[in-house]
Amino acid sequence: MNRDRLMVPPGSKISLKKDFDPADTEGYKNEEAALAKLQKGKERLAKYQDTLYAHDSYALLIIFQAIDAAGKDSTIKHVMSGVNPQGCQVFSFKAPSAEELDHDYLWRCSKALPERGRIGIFNRSYYEEVLVAQVHPEILAAQKLPPESKGKGIWKRRFEEINNFEKYLVNNGIVVVKFFLNVSKEEQKRRFLDRINRPEKNWKFDVGDVKERGFWNDYMNAYEDVFNHTSTDSAPWYIIPADNKWFTRLAVVDIICNTLKDLKLTYPTVSEAHRQELLKAKELLKNED
Amino acid sequence: MNRDRLMVPPGSKISLKKDFDPADTEGYKNEEAALAKLQKGKERLAKYQDTLYAHDSYALLIIFQAIDAAGKDSTIKHVMSGVNPQGCQVFSFKAPSAEELDHDYLWRCSKALPERGRIGIFNRSYYEEVLVAQVHPEILAAQKLPPESKGKGIWKRRFEEINNFEKYLVNNGIVVVKFFLNVSKEEQKRRFLDRINRPEKNWKFDVGDVKERGFWNDYMNAYEDVFNHTSTDSAPWYIIPADNKWFTRLAVVDIICNTLKDLKLTYPTVSEAHRQELLKAKELLKNED
Repeated sequence: MNRDRLMVPPGSKISLKKDFDPADTEGYKNEEAALAKLQKGKERLAKYQDTLYAHDSYALLIIFQAIDAAGKDSTIKHVMSGVNPQGCQVFSFKAPSAEELDHDYLWRCSKALPERGRIGIFNRSYYEEVLVAQVHPEILAAQKLPPESKGKGIWKRRFEEINNFEKYLVNNGIVVVKFFLNVSKEEQKRRFLDRINRPEKNWKFDVGDVKERGFWNDYMNAYEDVFNHTSTDSAPWYIIPADNKWFTRLAVVDIICNTLKDLKLTYPTVSEAHRQELLKAKELLKNED
Repeated sequence: MNRDRLMVPPGSKISLKKDFDPADTEGYKNEEAALAKLQKGKERLAKYQDTLYAHDSYALLIIFQAIDAAGKDSTIKHVMSGVNPQGCQVFSFKAPSAEELDHDYLWRCSKALPERGRIGIFNRSYYEEVLVAQVHPEILAAQKLPPESKGKGIWKRRFEEINNFEKYLVNNGIVVVKFFLNVSKEEQKRRFLDRINRPEKNWKFDVGDVKERGFWNDYMNAYEDVFNHTSTDSAPWYIIPADNKWFTRLAVVDIICNTLKDLKLTYPTVSEAHRQELLKAKELLKNED
């Protein structure tokens, strides 16, 4: 997997449409061809997670953003099943509650950040505040912001705030990786129809989702804007082809593994003082009557 | 697996020593003999969890209690890996923080209860407040309770409070299952020595754990007291033989599966009104230009 090819290069401008193909599979012909690699990736991930947990000084925050039916839920399910749930937390952010609206927009996400040694997954995140809030001005209006906080230049200011927040996280050991699952408009339609046609999938389908398709171009523009302003060396964005779910999973597990690999983590070793204590404990255990 | 044989019958008195054998394996000869059943159990669990999530009105709270090295962490890891982490949260309760001590003893656990549709796992729980707090009076003393709240009869009162709390949870759709991993004193010693002898396990070993072995009988008495007062029809206790880790996993996955099975959950069906909306959405999608 060529990680760099999927990354939005910090400091440069990309075009979502021209530079990233939702149907790309990096040469893999079909699901069968990728299956063994996916399985191996999941095993690698379980091992890295175990070291992260034992090492207990870094955390990994994984952010998933995408439009509906791009496969966020199923990617999380397939990539992260197999990881010890004791070291992995998933938070799904829905429309903010009244209590959450009474706070700044990073508040509810800050509360949900992973503890050291853990992988935290945000299914949607504070990026909604520069995406859906940009596409639907009434959402911004409901945020009870003082007038000087919602004037002109708000999006640029929010990008800066988010960059600073993520830099702070990375400075303090919380590694940040951001995935955009890039599904095409045609594939979204196919998946919606599938959810309608298969009764057992009906419960997953919200009729309002079809209305949101009317804002497709607005969303794509907002996303492009986000990537061009918030893909940083500290916290890069990866645009993951999402027309083939199996390839999405493969790319995501690979990037997570390599991000953890970069940390060069090892199991903790004990100090000489601790070793002496261990030997004393051993004696105590052996001399029990 | 005979679920009833491992349960503490509500309303009756058990003897931990006489009635429950830590080395019991219910006729399974060894790990190999149990492996296929464990794998099948994990697959069943993943399916039940998926239905629980879709159904979205019940939650399952699983409590693990045990003395050190009984296998809480490894049971959670092996039984729950494979479950969609989006529907499963694990909370480990350590010594309470200053903020937590400023609240009643159920507060920090209430905050961590699973949302509807989720499985929540407590690695230790409010039961520590009638276990370690009973064995080490100085812990109770540090809890800043007003004098009338910590006098004689406190343990019986706490059992009643806990029973009422759990009854409230069950009444409101949060199913409660409680596991005690029953390891023998000899096996604990063997595992401690193993953690000392194998350098890669050293980090898991806290020298203080050996000192706690001195209170073994006090702990067993406290546990017995807990089981005899808080195994209820709403929230039964299961005493899981824990001298063989593979059997612990098998018993735990089996009981969780059967508890979920008892709920007779199905995937949500849609109302006629919702069906009409789905058909309208279908038309909209088909008529897109």
